[in-house]
Amino acid sequence: MKAQNGTSLTAMANAIRALSMDAVQAANSGHPGMPMGMADVATVLWSRHMKFDPAAPAWADRDRFVLSAGHGSMLLYSLLHLTGFEDMTMDQIKQFRQLDSLTAGHPEYGHTPGVEATTGPLGQGISMSVGMALAERMMNARYGDDLVDHRTWVIASDGDLQEGISHEAISLAGHLGLNRLCVLWDDNEISIDGPTQLSESTDVLKRFEAANWAVSRIDGHDMEAIDAALEAAKTSDKPVLIACRTTIGYGAPTKAGTAGSHGSPLGPDEIAGARKALGWDHPAFEVPSDILDAWRAAGSPDAHAAWRDRLADHDLADAFVAQLSGEPGEAELAALAAWRRKVAEDKPALATRASSGQALGAIIGDWPGLVGGSADLTGSNLTKTPDVGVVKAGDYAGQYIHFGVREHGMAACANGMSLHGGFRPHVATFLVFSDYCRPSIRMSALMQQPVIYVMTHDSIGLGEDGPTHQPVETLAALRAIPNVEVFRPCDALETAEAWEAALTRLDGPTVLALSRQKLPHLRSDDGAENLSARGAYTLVDSDGAPDVLLIATGSEVSLAVDAAATLAGEGIAARVVSAPCVERFLAQDAGYQDAVLPQGVPCVAAEAALRYGWDAVIGRGGAFVGMNGFGASAPAETLYEHFGITAGAIAAAARGLVRG
Amino acid sequence: MKAQNGTSLTAMANAIRALSMDAVQAANSGHPGMPMGMADVATVLWSRHMKFDPAAPAWADRDRFVLSAGHGSMLLYSLLHLTGFEDMTMDQIKQFRQLDSLTAGHPEYGHTPGVEATTGPLGQGISMSVGMALAERMMNARYGDDLVDHRTWVIASDGDLQEGISHEAISLAGHLGLNRLCVLWDDNEISIDGPTQLSESTDVLKRFEAANWAVSRIDGHDMEAIDAALEAAKTSDKPVLIACRTTIGYGAPTKAGTAGSHGSPLGPDEIAGARKALGWDHPAFEVPSDILDAWRAAGSPDAHAAWRDRLADHDLADAFVAQLSGEPGEAELAALAAWRRKVAEDKPALATRASSGQALGAIIGDWPGLVGGSADLTGSNLTKTPDVGVVKAGDYAGQYIHFGVREHGMAACANGMSLHGGFRPHVATFLVFSDYCRPSIRMSALMQQPVIYVMTHDSIGLGEDGPTHQPVETLAALRAIPNVEVFRPCDALETAEAWEAALTRLDGPTVLALSRQKLPHLRSDDGAENLSARGAYTLVDSDGAPDVLLIATGSEVSLAVDAAATLAGEGIAARVVSAPCVERFLAQDAGYQDAVLPQGVPCVAAEAALRYGWDAVIGRGGAFVGMNGFGASAPAETLYEHFGITAGAIAAAARGLVRG
Repeated sequence: MKAQNGTSLTAMANAIRALSMDAVQAANSGHPGMPMGMADVATVLWSRHMKFDPAAPAWADRDRFVLSAGHGSMLLYSLLHLTGFEDMTMDQIKQFRQLDSLTAGHPEYGHTPGVEATTGPLGQGISMSVGMALAERMMNARYGDDLVDHRTWVIASDGDLQEGISHEAISLAGHLGLNRLCVLWDDNEISIDGPTQLSESTDVLKRFEAANWAVSRIDGHDMEAIDAALEAAKTSDKPVLIACRTTIGYGAPTKAGTAGSHGSPLGPDEIAGARKALGWDHPAFEVPSDILDAWRAAGSPDAHAAWRDRLADHDLADAFVAQLSGEPGEAELAALAAWRRKVAEDKPALATRASSGQALGAIIGDWPGLVGGSADLTGSNLTKTPDVGVVKAGDYAGQYIHFGVREHGMAACANGMSLHGGFRPHVATFLVFSDYCRPSIRMSALMQQPVIYVMTHDSIGLGEDGPTHQPVETLAALRAIPNVEVFRPCDALETAEAWEAALTRLDGPTVLALSRQKLPHLRSDDGAENLSARGAYTLVDSDGAPDVLLIATGSEVSLAVDAAATLAGEGIAARVVSAPCVERFLAQDAGYQDAVLPQGVPCVAAEAALRYGWDAVIGRGGAFVGMNGFGASAPAETLYEHFGITAGAIAAAARGLVRG
Repeated sequence: MKAQNGTSLTAMANAIRALSMDAVQAANSGHPGMPMGMADVATVLWSRHMKFDPAAPAWADRDRFVLSAGHGSMLLYSLLHLTGFEDMTMDQIKQFRQLDSLTAGHPEYGHTPGVEATTGPLGQGISMSVGMALAERMMNARYGDDLVDHRTWVIASDGDLQEGISHEAISLAGHLGLNRLCVLWDDNEISIDGPTQLSESTDVLKRFEAANWAVSRIDGHDMEAIDAALEAAKTSDKPVLIACRTTIGYGAPTKAGTAGSHGSPLGPDEIAGARKALGWDHPAFEVPSDILDAWRAAGSPDAHAAWRDRLADHDLADAFVAQLSGEPGEAELAALAAWRRKVAEDKPALATRASSGQALGAIIGDWPGLVGGSADLTGSNLTKTPDVGVVKAGDYAGQYIHFGVREHGMAACANGMSLHGGFRPHVATFLVFSDYCRPSIRMSALMQQPVIYVMTHDSIGLGEDGPTHQPVETLAALRAIPNVEVFRPCDALETAEAWEAALTRLDGPTVLALSRQKLPHLRSDDGAENLSARGAYTLVDSDGAPDVLLIATGSEVSLAVDAAATLAGEGIAARVVSAPCVERFLAQDAGYQDAVLPQGVPCVAAEAALRYGWDAVIGRGGAFVGMNGFGASAPAETLYEHFGITAGAIAAAARGLVRG
């Protein structure tokens, strides 16, 4: 099979192989086997099927390409260079895996134009691709074929398919009928430990068929077969898996077909042998002009130009562009501010999960890109607002998704939707099960995606379900992730503020930790200013300079307020500081921090969780009222007494600090 | 179908239904639907097929029963009461979900005799059951049919099967041919959000067939069909899935077959209606004597007695009992101590992952119950020691398991092996991917199971793989989990000590965080005492009282040693404290802590990770040399310079504290 200029596709593929083995060798680190094995498949895909414009990596209607097997990053970097993404110069290829190069060890979204998703942790890429394919259909349902008509292509490894998250992702994709999704499985029968048969006996095609995918199997080195399979994929009414039987390290004389070509440089002799076997007699990092010309002819600049013309004339162009940005516009900002003021006036006493549901309900009508769902806890998480439509196979107009008990796949799907553009996803489960989505939450943070995690049942306050369901270390574990903001609001107004903070944030994820149990309304201001936005603030000040500072979050703030009242009666001046987002507070300037928590005044913190992490706020000398270990099964009020998380305990701790 | 005393099995099943709905109603909290739906299946299983002795819940050769759908805990508590587990009195049933009762909201291992595993977080139970079934075959391979010949039975829900971990678990079980495992799927077509069709379209039987399971489908209310399916399961040469089509809340007049019976009390009227529909006209918490008699005849005390006789006469009885305990014996303790002394003498400069592999190799021959594996990173984690046999389908004599890229399923499998008894499992992946196993690590901690997590590539020191693979928050996140001990050794001797600490610990999991990169040997003592066992100790003391304390872990300890030497040259007396296990150190008495870190002396901590959590050791005034966010892709030495984690930075921080 030949390109239009007569260059054989095999020669084009060999350019990928040569660049990959040379770059890995130069770095003395990396994974040559996968790029060499999948070079033929990638060449047919990128030169004959994929819709993209190297001059416009962010074109909204481009096909998405996700290298789920991110260790094979040189495959992607080679493709970006060869097709002419301008930042991906040969010098970058030569700087593979060096500090500040665009050619990081694994593809990094936001770091390298043309990289659609950060990949490497196995299973994440294929699962994010489900979110991309879903977002495409959901945008298509809103704006039609003229503006939204693209596909999502994935290269996945054996490891991607062994990961549990892949099960969640593919069953969701099959259920939702995402036929614009095509996964090219690098079926090379080699894992890191050796032949896949060491650990794997699954009939993968049957597995995908069971999940409502269309499946086929091809020789991944037969250009005609690859071409035919990709063509067929475009007419499928189901998501498509193509098993591409390949030879890992294809061309390497002794290491091809072995784990030895997976994750180490091939070495000079093996590279020389591969050059000979492939008929590639060009020096390292040199691609002959005819082959480069053939590659530079790939892509779809004409389709892009035609799309731009359609957009310019389109009735919905402004709405489309606004929604794509993900940024709140005037209507969205006004809805958030209005809701804040209304709650301040109404002062409802609700569980913060209920306040959250009401906040969402109040703003979602003004926010078409605000979509989300729950991992089969809709009635507990309260994220399905009245009148919201449900997304189904073939009907993607809704704003709510029943994700099933698929926390990890749900979070990755949200990352994919966010990366695709057009949507601000919120996803929900119990807080303790954030552990199930944790690898994807980390990806949200690393990729700076503003996914909103609505995590209810945030402490022993959930009661009888017991220690398996009661987070104690979970807040700390989430706060520890860089670029994650955890909000634990104390009442309906702070909950409104937390939603506002989350939705106006564009560069990272937010976790909303919400109570199952009803909480009193504590704020007495008119809601004109978002006080939670600075992380912590004085909720109830002492009469005169404080003797002690009572810092609390969420459901424990009302206990601190009660404790302060008790202490006032004893002549101890206690200031109550509500700290809905500790990370934001610690990021404020020292002046603000000192104004809220004056240095030298002893601190008591109260949170129905472990102390871990709190010493950074209250110091080693501070007192802490919270949990010391796992919870227990009993009614919530019983548990608060049992574990000593009470206003009395906070007052006693304060007394101890003040009176020594 | 009738029991031997003529009682119908349906009446026996109705006893479960009545107790379940009454207990949930009394608690005003809980899940009646599942116990009522699966009562018939459970009755046939427990009264006609399962091998157990209510008088001996810990009998080694009992069948294991895992209620993966742990929310249906009243099913299990009812069975334990009805069959006569003596602690499970009717009073306990009446105290369902109350503080200190044996009838916690979800079944808790170690809390309630007869509960084989803590369940509730979906997917964990079915995945632990794979470890139990594997442990059974591995013990059988060592001790034969006379001592080890039992089965593992599981009740799993739709949610269990939607979870990604189930994919990892069932593909591993199929690969390893664990035909003593039988999963009874409660195929009730109802999820919490409503009909399962809201989120699920998978052909579950086909899915399990693809994973090499034998499958069948039955009416879960047809006693004969249940009996026949269970009988057939016993002769399968593959693990068995039986899809039991049931009606959730069976018997409830209006809520049966709906999500309304899942997670809330039925209410007095509905319960009265169910009593009528089921023909159960007995008061709450009363079981007629004929039905109770039929239940009390269940179980296998005779088989237990015969087994005890076989054990008494068995050549391998002592070894069997010793291995079952999991405790290190004299040989094991001697091997650990000998290795410690040898390393102290040899002083090898190795990556701690390499030291770990050598330690394991040195002791595994003396430790038949020490088994483990890696999630397809064997050559990186270095947990496969020379001469160790590999566990395969039909050949379970080995001590090494190729888990495939199944971190979560691997960890749950280890929990199951540990719960089963006989094995001390170690499981391995990169430290950053501990996030993928985190829900199961939490279960190890909650169930107090001494699983050893060998987590290599523990920092930016892994170099070029970049931020997706570089843990920065991971140490903090693991340290935050109650009852987890994280060891990050600095050299080969501390690595030997960490293994000793992990293997002599019986009441919780240990994480070994190990370097990819080579580290110098730092310890100069003879290894006679395990200095790491107290968590932190003075490695290099200052000449005279210290002006500053340099506390470090793992790969940063040598930097602290270098910094102390520099500072000594400047007249600053710096003590170097190595802190391989911060949690252990913080659990020491104040006298020891003050001796190592004298109060009032300023502290610098160094760890190639985030500061989060360190303020508890060094105070808010302490200095920290480490990471401030995610890592980057570059050679390790470049990254250490780039992020300023150097001896010079430690010395500068110390100078700043000492000189103000």
